[in-house]
Amino acid sequence: MTTLASYRDHLAEIGKLTSAAALLGWDLQTHMPPKAAPYRAQVQGKLARMAFELSTDDALGAYLAELRKDASLTLLEKASVRVNGKAYDRARSVPAAFVEERQIAQSESQGAWVEARRTNDFSLFQPHLEKMVGYARQLADYYGYEEHPYDALLEDFEPGLTCRQLRSIIEPLKEGLVPFLRQLLTKGTPPDASVLAGDYDPDELRRLARHALDIIGYDFAAGALDDVAHPFTSTIGPNDVRVTNRYPTESPLPSLFGALHEGGHALYNQAFTEELYALNLAGGASNGIHESQSRMIENQVGRSRAFWKYFRDVLAEHFPKFATVSPEALYRACNVVAPSFIRVEADEVTYNFHIMLRFEIEAGLMEGSIAVADLPNRWNQAMKDYLGIVPPTDSAGVLQDVHWSFGYMGYFPSYMLGNLYAAQMLPAIRRSLPTLDASLERGDLKPLVGWLRENVHCHGAAYEPDELIQRISGEPLNPEHFVRYVREKYSDVYAL
Amino acid sequence: MTTLASYRDHLAEIGKLTSAAALLGWDLQTHMPPKAAPYRAQVQGKLARMAFELSTDDALGAYLAELRKDASLTLLEKASVRVNGKAYDRARSVPAAFVEERQIAQSESQGAWVEARRTNDFSLFQPHLEKMVGYARQLADYYGYEEHPYDALLEDFEPGLTCRQLRSIIEPLKEGLVPFLRQLLTKGTPPDASVLAGDYDPDELRRLARHALDIIGYDFAAGALDDVAHPFTSTIGPNDVRVTNRYPTESPLPSLFGALHEGGHALYNQAFTEELYALNLAGGASNGIHESQSRMIENQVGRSRAFWKYFRDVLAEHFPKFATVSPEALYRACNVVAPSFIRVEADEVTYNFHIMLRFEIEAGLMEGSIAVADLPNRWNQAMKDYLGIVPPTDSAGVLQDVHWSFGYMGYFPSYMLGNLYAAQMLPAIRRSLPTLDASLERGDLKPLVGWLRENVHCHGAAYEPDELIQRISGEPLNPEHFVRYVREKYSDVYAL
Repeated sequence: MTTLASYRDHLAEIGKLTSAAALLGWDLQTHMPPKAAPYRAQVQGKLARMAFELSTDDALGAYLAELRKDASLTLLEKASVRVNGKAYDRARSVPAAFVEERQIAQSESQGAWVEARRTNDFSLFQPHLEKMVGYARQLADYYGYEEHPYDALLEDFEPGLTCRQLRSIIEPLKEGLVPFLRQLLTKGTPPDASVLAGDYDPDELRRLARHALDIIGYDFAAGALDDVAHPFTSTIGPNDVRVTNRYPTESPLPSLFGALHEGGHALYNQAFTEELYALNLAGGASNGIHESQSRMIENQVGRSRAFWKYFRDVLAEHFPKFATVSPEALYRACNVVAPSFIRVEADEVTYNFHIMLRFEIEAGLMEGSIAVADLPNRWNQAMKDYLGIVPPTDSAGVLQDVHWSFGYMGYFPSYMLGNLYAAQMLPAIRRSLPTLDASLERGDLKPLVGWLRENVHCHGAAYEPDELIQRISGEPLNPEHFVRYVREKYSDVYAL
Repeated sequence: MTTLASYRDHLAEIGKLTSAAALLGWDLQTHMPPKAAPYRAQVQGKLARMAFELSTDDALGAYLAELRKDASLTLLEKASVRVNGKAYDRARSVPAAFVEERQIAQSESQGAWVEARRTNDFSLFQPHLEKMVGYARQLADYYGYEEHPYDALLEDFEPGLTCRQLRSIIEPLKEGLVPFLRQLLTKGTPPDASVLAGDYDPDELRRLARHALDIIGYDFAAGALDDVAHPFTSTIGPNDVRVTNRYPTESPLPSLFGALHEGGHALYNQAFTEELYALNLAGGASNGIHESQSRMIENQVGRSRAFWKYFRDVLAEHFPKFATVSPEALYRACNVVAPSFIRVEADEVTYNFHIMLRFEIEAGLMEGSIAVADLPNRWNQAMKDYLGIVPPTDSAGVLQDVHWSFGYMGYFPSYMLGNLYAAQMLPAIRRSLPTLDASLERGDLKPLVGWLRENVHCHGAAYEPDELIQRISGEPLNPEHFVRYVREKYSDVYAL
């Protein structure tokens, strides 16, 4: 067998274990009965261990070493060797004993965070978070970095991005958004969202979500829609990309936008070819690029004036009272801007501020310029500076997200980058599809999704995010696109 | 580490793979999108292969050899060594090449059977079935047997049972049932089941099924109820035993009895202790004993006069029209006896005939006294002899069941044995619980299920079925109990 064939076989074996592990994870949150949790953790642990062993074994290293010198590979094969080679080197650089020790500490830390959030007592979590930061620094040392330890961690989520670049993106973003938000809130006329109030039947909301997924082109024959507490999209394997959703009954919007958001992720993954799976490139270019696809469908489509010209009637099919509400009123009602404490509930304009403050804290923790003990103060000060509000409790502030309880540093920026990438793609899309709005007004997403498939989805993880956005837009990541998008849209909505 | 500890560790590793495989299998039939099927087969194949390798490796053989000599083991540990040792020896006796060749042939045979049944053309299936019978004989040779090749295959489903014993059970069963069925059909007064006709809302049927499962004590916090085409119960692991059901809308009975049947299986598996799981004894004593538990809940409870005194009101809660139907009328309506072509739709009296004719054919195929080509004739003749009816097509006759398409011989008798075991347990239960009927009339199954837990469930696979039924009833398997049960019950229902 050739080295390339052995390499492909090896990836296929990893892929099957990963698929089984993905199903276990999906089931855990959708259908698994509560009492099954302790044993499920053991089964997941075993599959993760087996997949890790296969992903770090000497044979794979030998294949990679040889294939790195092989000039006859296809472009995709080369990308596979690059991406999987980097992951291999990183995984091998971390001692198994460290991984194990950290896992145990993560589990304890997670428990402490749950309790701290429940009782609104940061001090319960503080010693654990200190430990987690220590592990994150240690991990960065194992991985290695040139300038900032944060760079080593960012690599997992945004390959190639550095702390310095992030800062250079955030500065103009702040400059563009802080005064605009102030203007919006003091001089703008907020839309009337009262028409959305009500008590909605969750079964009908579920049918509406399904309808919306149909409209965007989500393939139910290669997917499923299930109920969960915290929505996510899970790729079990080729032709098996499942979305999940929740159905708060006080408004039709959370479940509708939840479905569009997860549907956006799912369209990406449903487009992966067999060859991408075979080469273990069946993932997004980065977390940020992945998030750009969910935001594109949720915001650039779902919160657009054009789409509501079509979607008002769809909504009214499920909830007849909306037949007498104008598309324009609904468009405006789902574009209310309001500073709030909780990141996951934030609107398009305020969302990025939630990320900036997290990034600044993370970078400071990693370089040692911020102490964990000082986090609640830092947090509240930043909330005041950016959004003009101070959380009433730490549970609604520094303790709100799960990420730090596992010591995941470098994850949050992806959410912001998703907004920026999506806003930067949009002008390129409009150049290619000058009649985009007209098609959205007919509820026809085929042109848009076709474009995304051709320019984003079909590449899987073959390009790094900076290369991909350069190919698409002709320039590197540039936050001005997002600032312009937000200013234009919300100046109109708020009649500035 | 002691040998015993190593042995337990080894079983735990097998258990985790088995659990992941069980989830893949459950998902395949409940939630998996259709396009995912080809890849799912690969993932299942990998997990099955890994589990098989662990189950047959030399280390396990060495542990078993040593533990067989260890007098200090607990009773359960001894049973574990016996049961797992037997499975180990059998698995090791079959060459891997044979297993692989047979698997490929099974897959082709299954496809041919689907096509043959669809087109009602036995000749399409015949050459494949001939192959399957050949493999089954070869398998019996690998396993070894003393008297009849069928014995070697029965061992997988009813440990310790032989073809000769089965024949000695079937003879008196025939003698007791054939004339009684004739009498019932010619001289009896059939119950009026017309009250059940209607068009029932599947969502309400699902709620009724859930209600029925609550009543029998199925633990939803350690299980789930999902929709499928062909109901089954799946044990994913400790505290995770899931039932499935289907909801035909023309009568409330199929889904109700489906839920009670699968619920009976599930009560068995939900009772397995951690120690049974740890020793790989978390299974039924045999397929027949397992079936006895589903029949017990479906028939001895669900089709009893006492239960309907309580359950009429439950049914009327979901379908108000039944509030005016007497419990007695409902009891009678769900005990109609009628010869029919399809095994899975058969009633308590005719069911066993469907099994007898399959057993006689299987035994004949294994010993070579019956040719595959002659099966349609044999089948139709037996249907005429036993039930007085001849299937209009082979699809409604010899082609109706999936089992033979995989070459599974020796499986069918378990269904019949389940009926016999349940009928034999009932008098013992009544001796222990003289007020059984009174508790059923209150919808209180705790005494019955408690008894089953204590006398059947808690032992898992530690006893062979003959030992278990002897412990419970004081005698070996005796078909007279079933004959008496059927004669008494149906003489009354049919006013003979």
